[in-house]
Amino acid sequence: MGNSYAGTGGGSGADDGRPDSGVRKADSFDAAILGVPISKTSISHSAAFRLPDAIRSTFHSFSPYNMNRRLDLSEVLHVVDVGNVQMHLTDLQLCHQRIEDAVKSYWQSHSAPVIVLGGDHSITGAAMLGLTQATERTYGVIHFDAHHDVRNLEDGGRSNGTPFRTLLSSGAVSGKHVIQIGLRDYVNARAYHEYVLQHGVTVVTAREVHHRGLMRVLEEAYRIVSDGTDAVYLSFDMDVLDQSHVPGVPAPGPGGLAIYDVIEALEWLGAKPNIEMMDIVCADPSQDFRDLTTRVAANVVLSFLTGLAMRKQTAVDMG
Amino acid sequence: MGNSYAGTGGGSGADDGRPDSGVRKADSFDAAILGVPISKTSISHSAAFRLPDAIRSTFHSFSPYNMNRRLDLSEVLHVVDVGNVQMHLTDLQLCHQRIEDAVKSYWQSHSAPVIVLGGDHSITGAAMLGLTQATERTYGVIHFDAHHDVRNLEDGGRSNGTPFRTLLSSGAVSGKHVIQIGLRDYVNARAYHEYVLQHGVTVVTAREVHHRGLMRVLEEAYRIVSDGTDAVYLSFDMDVLDQSHVPGVPAPGPGGLAIYDVIEALEWLGAKPNIEMMDIVCADPSQDFRDLTTRVAANVVLSFLTGLAMRKQTAVDMG
Amino acid sequence: MGNSYAGTGGGSGADDGRPDSGVRKADSFDAAILGVPISKTSISHSAAFRLPDAIRSTFHSFSPYNMNRRLDLSEVLHVVDVGNVQMHLTDLQLCHQRIEDAVKSYWQSHSAPVIVLGGDHSITGAAMLGLTQATERTYGVIHFDAHHDVRNLEDGGRSNGTPFRTLLSSGAVSGKHVIQIGLRDYVNARAYHEYVLQHGVTVVTAREVHHRGLMRVLEEAYRIVSDGTDAVYLSFDMDVLDQSHVPGVPAPGPGGLAIYDVIEALEWLGAKPNIEMMDIVCADPSQDFRDLTTRVAANVVLSFLTGLAMRKQTAVDMG
Amino acid sequence: MGNSYAGTGGGSGADDGRPDSGVRKADSFDAAILGVPISKTSISHSAAFRLPDAIRSTFHSFSPYNMNRRLDLSEVLHVVDVGNVQMHLTDLQLCHQRIEDAVKSYWQSHSAPVIVLGGDHSITGAAMLGLTQATERTYGVIHFDAHHDVRNLEDGGRSNGTPFRTLLSSGAVSGKHVIQIGLRDYVNARAYHEYVLQHGVTVVTAREVHHRGLMRVLEEAYRIVSDGTDAVYLSFDMDVLDQSHVPGVPAPGPGGLAIYDVIEALEWLGAKPNIEMMDIVCADPSQDFRDLTTRVAANVVLSFLTGLAMRKQTAVDMG
Amino acid sequence: MGNSYAGTGGGSGADDGRPDSGVRKADSFDAAILGVPISKTSISHSAAFRLPDAIRSTFHSFSPYNMNRRLDLSEVLHVVDVGNVQMHLTDLQLCHQRIEDAVKSYWQSHSAPVIVLGGDHSITGAAMLGLTQATERTYGVIHFDAHHDVRNLEDGGRSNGTPFRTLLSSGAVSGKHVIQIGLRDYVNARAYHEYVLQHGVTVVTAREVHHRGLMRVLEEAYRIVSDGTDAVYLSFDMDVLDQSHVPGVPAPGPGGLAIYDVIEALEWLGAKPNIEMMDIVCADPSQDFRDLTTRVAANVVLSFLTGLAMRKQTAVDMG
Amino acid sequence: MGNSYAGTGGGSGADDGRPDSGVRKADSFDAAILGVPISKTSISHSAAFRLPDAIRSTFHSFSPYNMNRRLDLSEVLHVVDVGNVQMHLTDLQLCHQRIEDAVKSYWQSHSAPVIVLGGDHSITGAAMLGLTQATERTYGVIHFDAHHDVRNLEDGGRSNGTPFRTLLSSGAVSGKHVIQIGLRDYVNARAYHEYVLQHGVTVVTAREVHHRGLMRVLEEAYRIVSDGTDAVYLSFDMDVLDQSHVPGVPAPGPGGLAIYDVIEALEWLGAKPNIEMMDIVCADPSQDFRDLTTRVAANVVLSFLTGLAMRKQTAVDMG
Ligand SMILES: [Ca+2]
Ligand SMILES: [Ca+2]
Ligand SMILES: [Ca+2]
Ligand SMILES: [Ca+2]
Ligand SMILES: [Ca+2]
Ligand SMILES: [Ca+2]
Ligand SMILES: [Ca+2]
Ligand SMILES: [Ca+2]
Ligand SMILES: [Ca+2]
Ligand SMILES: [Ca+2]
Ligand SMILES: [Ca+2]
Ligand SMILES: [Ca+2]
Repeated sequence: MGNSYAGTGGGSGADDGRPDSGVRKADSFDAAILGVPISKTSISHSAAFRLPDAIRSTFHSFSPYNMNRRLDLSEVLHVVDVGNVQMHLTDLQLCHQRIEDAVKSYWQSHSAPVIVLGGDHSITGAAMLGLTQATERTYGVIHFDAHHDVRNLEDGGRSNGTPFRTLLSSGAVSGKHVIQIGLRDYVNARAYHEYVLQHGVTVVTAREVHHRGLMRVLEEAYRIVSDGTDAVYLSFDMDVLDQSHVPGVPAPGPGGLAIYDVIEALEWLGAKPNIEMMDIVCADPSQDFRDLTTRVAANVVLSFLTGLAMRKQTAVDMG
Repeated sequence: MGNSYAGTGGGSGADDGRPDSGVRKADSFDAAILGVPISKTSISHSAAFRLPDAIRSTFHSFSPYNMNRRLDLSEVLHVVDVGNVQMHLTDLQLCHQRIEDAVKSYWQSHSAPVIVLGGDHSITGAAMLGLTQATERTYGVIHFDAHHDVRNLEDGGRSNGTPFRTLLSSGAVSGKHVIQIGLRDYVNARAYHEYVLQHGVTVVTAREVHHRGLMRVLEEAYRIVSDGTDAVYLSFDMDVLDQSHVPGVPAPGPGGLAIYDVIEALEWLGAKPNIEMMDIVCADPSQDFRDLTTRVAANVVLSFLTGLAMRKQTAVDMG
Repeated sequence: MGNSYAGTGGGSGADDGRPDSGVRKADSFDAAILGVPISKTSISHSAAFRLPDAIRSTFHSFSPYNMNRRLDLSEVLHVVDVGNVQMHLTDLQLCHQRIEDAVKSYWQSHSAPVIVLGGDHSITGAAMLGLTQATERTYGVIHFDAHHDVRNLEDGGRSNGTPFRTLLSSGAVSGKHVIQIGLRDYVNARAYHEYVLQHGVTVVTAREVHHRGLMRVLEEAYRIVSDGTDAVYLSFDMDVLDQSHVPGVPAPGPGGLAIYDVIEALEWLGAKPNIEMMDIVCADPSQDFRDLTTRVAANVVLSFLTGLAMRKQTAVDMG
Repeated sequence: MGNSYAGTGGGSGADDGRPDSGVRKADSFDAAILGVPISKTSISHSAAFRLPDAIRSTFHSFSPYNMNRRLDLSEVLHVVDVGNVQMHLTDLQLCHQRIEDAVKSYWQSHSAPVIVLGGDHSITGAAMLGLTQATERTYGVIHFDAHHDVRNLEDGGRSNGTPFRTLLSSGAVSGKHVIQIGLRDYVNARAYHEYVLQHGVTVVTAREVHHRGLMRVLEEAYRIVSDGTDAVYLSFDMDVLDQSHVPGVPAPGPGGLAIYDVIEALEWLGAKPNIEMMDIVCADPSQDFRDLTTRVAANVVLSFLTGLAMRKQTAVDMG
Repeated sequence: MGNSYAGTGGGSGADDGRPDSGVRKADSFDAAILGVPISKTSISHSAAFRLPDAIRSTFHSFSPYNMNRRLDLSEVLHVVDVGNVQMHLTDLQLCHQRIEDAVKSYWQSHSAPVIVLGGDHSITGAAMLGLTQATERTYGVIHFDAHHDVRNLEDGGRSNGTPFRTLLSSGAVSGKHVIQIGLRDYVNARAYHEYVLQHGVTVVTAREVHHRGLMRVLEEAYRIVSDGTDAVYLSFDMDVLDQSHVPGVPAPGPGGLAIYDVIEALEWLGAKPNIEMMDIVCADPSQDFRDLTTRVAANVVLSFLTGLAMRKQTAVDMG
Repeated sequence: MGNSYAGTGGGSGADDGRPDSGVRKADSFDAAILGVPISKTSISHSAAFRLPDAIRSTFHSFSPYNMNRRLDLSEVLHVVDVGNVQMHLTDLQLCHQRIEDAVKSYWQSHSAPVIVLGGDHSITGAAMLGLTQATERTYGVIHFDAHHDVRNLEDGGRSNGTPFRTLLSSGAVSGKHVIQIGLRDYVNARAYHEYVLQHGVTVVTAREVHHRGLMRVLEEAYRIVSDGTDAVYLSFDMDVLDQSHVPGVPAPGPGGLAIYDVIEALEWLGAKPNIEMMDIVCADPSQDFRDLTTRVAANVVLSFLTGLAMRKQTAVDMG
């Protein structure tokens, strides 16, 4: 696919740690892709920092054509790849600051949706802080994950176990605008479950998704995150999928979501007009089997992009 | 999880081959875990002897909290881990005798349900012989497996292919109280199918499970095994699951049961008051990919334990 | 299984590149198995040439007994294994000619259905050319695949990306008699989709299969390929299945068909009286995990054989 | 190589557990190959039972031609492969009895050297017992190993850790006729070292081999085992080699012997007129990388066979 | 081996990041083992943080007996394992400070040699800073490595590429007391070579070791580091060995040192009275094959311990 | 390393199958690198076609600095990478013709030495035919290999088993100017050994190298290939090395050459003024472990380049 998009290439960022953008007017492209290659902030050993480039590399063997929608993304969308936020080798706090700065800087001059390729889940905290500081808007959050990710920040600082603690405790987002989908038994402590409930977060377990169907859950989710907010952030942790689909996530487990449902869900979400930012995190190409997990990640992103293309076409039709 | 249970630890058994229990009154705990690390009795090369410790080790990275039931197992259940039956290096008949003795000894002084972590399926024959000798009760059997496991005993002695031959031919259980669930095409000889049918065993193929749904099958199964019996034994061969869920079983195959259904099924079964013993067998950690199969095994056991917790709460509520 | 069939063994073919048949009258057996160990014609690096012998070897650990149909294939069917077409080490055009010749030669003196074990998908072009030349009949084609396989022939000659270009452009088959099932988004260029539509091919994407169900799709498919044709060719590319089921295909991808559905589908198709030839292609044993993909391939073939056995029994019943 | 020898094939043995020989007069062949596929008697998990067939299979991709000696083994030697001793699935004592019986039976009617393909090292005890019972001769033993293999027999019966305890304590061989070569630090308890020294065994550590050179060690070894004995038994445990050469042995370790030296050593030993029997043990094809360890095993056997061919030619020259 | 030492166990350190010692008088033990599980400071992705526990675990399958010296380490030496320095999840500067503090604290109250199990090479900088601050002595350094490890500290902070830059530029050690052994072509920039030469460091390439022999190099090395110093620090980077011996190091390469030579060298060095501290770094158990590299690491440590035992015996003999 | 050379980049060749050169005057660079990504011509399954780009990619993590010679290749040599000869997907004869044409075309306008990165050994036949046609000179050949590579051309055309048959039978080179070094027992048929001897080829087995030392063998080799020839071609098959050094070659075997010796040998050969062309073949990155074999290949090429740099300096010194 690669070249069929009018991207700026996947080159590494500039020396100040911000992506090499020189990005101009918001109207010159339809979406931006931003790589955030960090995973030293993970609780378990992870090379998720390789995911951004692994997804890009997978794109090259893919076609931009969605048969079901008869939509060639390269014809409809102008997507710019603004490169990777440059990480510091040993100062991880600085890494988070650079992510926050990069996202903030982007949103100070742009309005096109951003797809963040992680990296581990610690990036969501930094990204949303940058986003909210830049736009000063109220955000709803749809969070696909097997885990709550609300560990305390005292013991180990900002890790992939803490992003929603960061966001809920700082007030950057309100729990009533947050829905977590796909949580699994035996991988979350009771204290974390109670913490999010106390903050008003809506929790939909993987079991409920199995019983009710993902699309029905999403319709409810979308209502919750859109009601009383200016826009929506979508955070996708790959381990929400059943481990048979994502052998390369650091924390695989059985009983998770089914891949086909997720692909349709992401397309549906991509088409929603108020989703401004999406991230995809926590897959480790070095522990994968034959890139199966990276292929899933690439499909998730492509499905969201197809949704964006549908969003654009709808806008044009209505214009 | 590990420490949150009040277990006696996973230490290896005493010199006489029996688990180091010193287990006391039946009322001091809710369930016992017994490891049986044997797989030299397997027809194909297997390191299933590593499964008991692999499951225990996996427990350490799990939480005891079931979100859907809002039930923290460590608060509700007192589970003791009575360790492993010590195996002899080269005398496999002695190994089976020790399993039989250990189970018999347990049931002579206890009444709390036992979860046996195999090992290969040969242990079920020895375990049920010990159980029936100790209790002198009539048992129904729910047997999840892709295979009938009724090979003759003449050619190679008691192996993982023979447990139900051992039990049916010895009269320890009656075929009319046995249901086998999940059998697959092309992995069972016609002669074995006919053998179990002649003994009155109920057979539900994987195909039937796909068509009717596992929960509906289970309701029928439960009726069959409970009707005219004093209690029920549950034997779970991991290869009943589709190979995409259990890459590490010695005999993987396509078309098997789906993992999510099985997780719910085990919880449902665990809550039944008359299931006294459960075993889980035939997964080989040394042939697995990223412990995916061991993770499934741990979830199966945790689901059954959640059922036990529900059983206990129901009993308390009714008390 | 192996010996339970009255096959002629899996020995390599004779020096002229044709299988060592000396096959006699059409009525002396019910089906023939022909290995075509070629994959140097693949676009990506592939050892699919090992699939024929890998499937045969897998058969040895399987039973010929289908429990659901209570049908022992070795009692009902007489299947001959006519060996492998001998490949030339470096002259790939000659390899295709030998495949074409072998199939043509078979059909000049036989009428029993043939199951071709590939190899990569380039063999379908050669096989159908040999078939149509020998029989001079009109064929419908059911093509399971994630891909259209209609790349141009100019750039790299006949590869696994071209068989349906070969067949449609040569007029060997008419697009209106062809149905492609299981195509996936982001792996087919728009130009190829349009090419097959212009030729009147019916296209059913994997998404449509997910929504409508495979059996309903197949009923339609069967009508299309049987209407106005003398017989039907069935081509099965293993990558039509979701990658969680076939980790060893050269081009895995998420969102594909489910294994259990496919097993039932092949049995249903095998029972149809007008399907004369089937091939199975594009699985690479050298990139597999624990032969999981080869096991699927063997189950696909066994399901089709079970269908053949049902077909024969129906014929006998009606005779 | 395979067919170039006039072997009887690698078929599994007859029902009584003895190889299918029907072997005739001693003068009709120059050497016999006997497979002993047992490894359930191993202390650590091992699939060394696969080694006999793995070596045979490797032979097929080898040439029988030794360039340095300009000697084509298939022209000089008539080697019969008498198949595998059939193992019982669960009665390991019976397995050892069958090995003992098979070797005893062979030597009651034959005189050509035997090469035993293990299996684990427990076979050496059984083989030498059979040998000495049949011939009633006094044997010297050259034992290549990183380990003494004199564990006690009480704790676990006859395992791969015990063969030389079996032989020394039974008096089947005298310690003064035994030399152990290649022992490594940190893998043998002091008690075992002292045990063998008390029995008069000569011990040459891997360090001494590194300092003195293997050929010089061998000359001394040969003197020790030939002095006062009727013949010599050679036992080769693959783990005597440095782990960089044998990644697939169950007990790899650094600091072992170098492969090239060993190849020359085996050729030199094969040419000695009084070596009647050789075994090769303790490599596990299932834990190997690209069959590197099996290739080494095959080269060790071929080197010994080259020595046998040289021995024969010398005999002819002198005749 | 494990229990035969009178260690305090491999438990993780206390909350303040220092090992749980409660270590007493210097005369109560002969050596201390300190784990430093850090590798997020590595330039390439590394799980060397797993090495300390991997080495300890390997010890359990080893014997403490050195045959060549007829020396049972568990009889001669009292070694305490003071556990691991506790690492912070995301603050890597704090990790280095904790290492420095732990080593400093140890040397303020002890005099027995310390063996540090890394971790990556960044620990050497911290460890030597702690050491020199505590003792205020002058140290010589023997540094086995394929690399100079003198990258600048500005770009990425203290990483595994910088320890000798840290030490040389801070003046903690003087270049004239440092010898680097085993450096390889094509993995060091000219600038780094010149940097160490300008600081007076002695450089012995792998080529020179191949030509002159390791023992002769060591005799020279020992003279250099002992001349004008109070004591010696030994730093052992596993990648100094040829990649055929250490497949699990993060930076493998051909042409390195031979394993047997290294084993003897470490024993020789361990026996020297003035070596106070040793570290072993940069092997990644997660990228290893069958723990071959961890086994080498364990042998390196055991060889050094054997040297310590010889040192003690010499002292006793001379006392 | 990569960019430090003034190469033209590793881009794929132009449409006519020739490398994208536009190469100018012979004096503008010191050596050319030409990739030949072909391995469908291999007898066993091989992805050696990936070796050229794998070596290039490895170069990027290497330094151009040879410590022992204190020589930075990027300062001394101007090396151009003329890209890869473009291969046809299915016409392998055409591939060989393109290689021949590319080499011929190069030598018609250039004189700087060429390093050919294979690919399998079939390329040597094509390359030398192109070379001799262009220069019409007489060549000596130094051939490192475990195999003679003189299979007949009738059975399978030009494969990796035939290059020296092609060259000797065509008269392109005379056997008396050819030396084969490193041949191993049991992997060459007697007929091939005799064939090369009859053609006057000098054969030095791996055993002879072990006994005499590689440098002494090389001095003789150099005399043989230089005597009566205009120039020398050096062909390096990676499987000449012992399998412990090259786990990723298609045909590994024990008893081969040692890596350190080979590295020095290649440097020595690179410095000889009359070696005009070198190739390196038969390593398969897809079957390697952690790129160990590719790293060896890169070191072999770098050693030869260091020799070239020494050659250039000598020429300058003498100029
Ligand atoms: Ca998460
Ligand atoms: Ca998660
Ligand atoms: Ca079973
Ligand atoms: Ca089973
Ligand atoms: Ca296809
Ligand atoms: Ca396909
Ligand atoms: Ca042994
Ligand atoms: Ca041993
Ligand atoms: Ca270092
Ligand atoms: Ca290093
Ligand atoms: Ca070659
Ligand atoms: Ca070769």
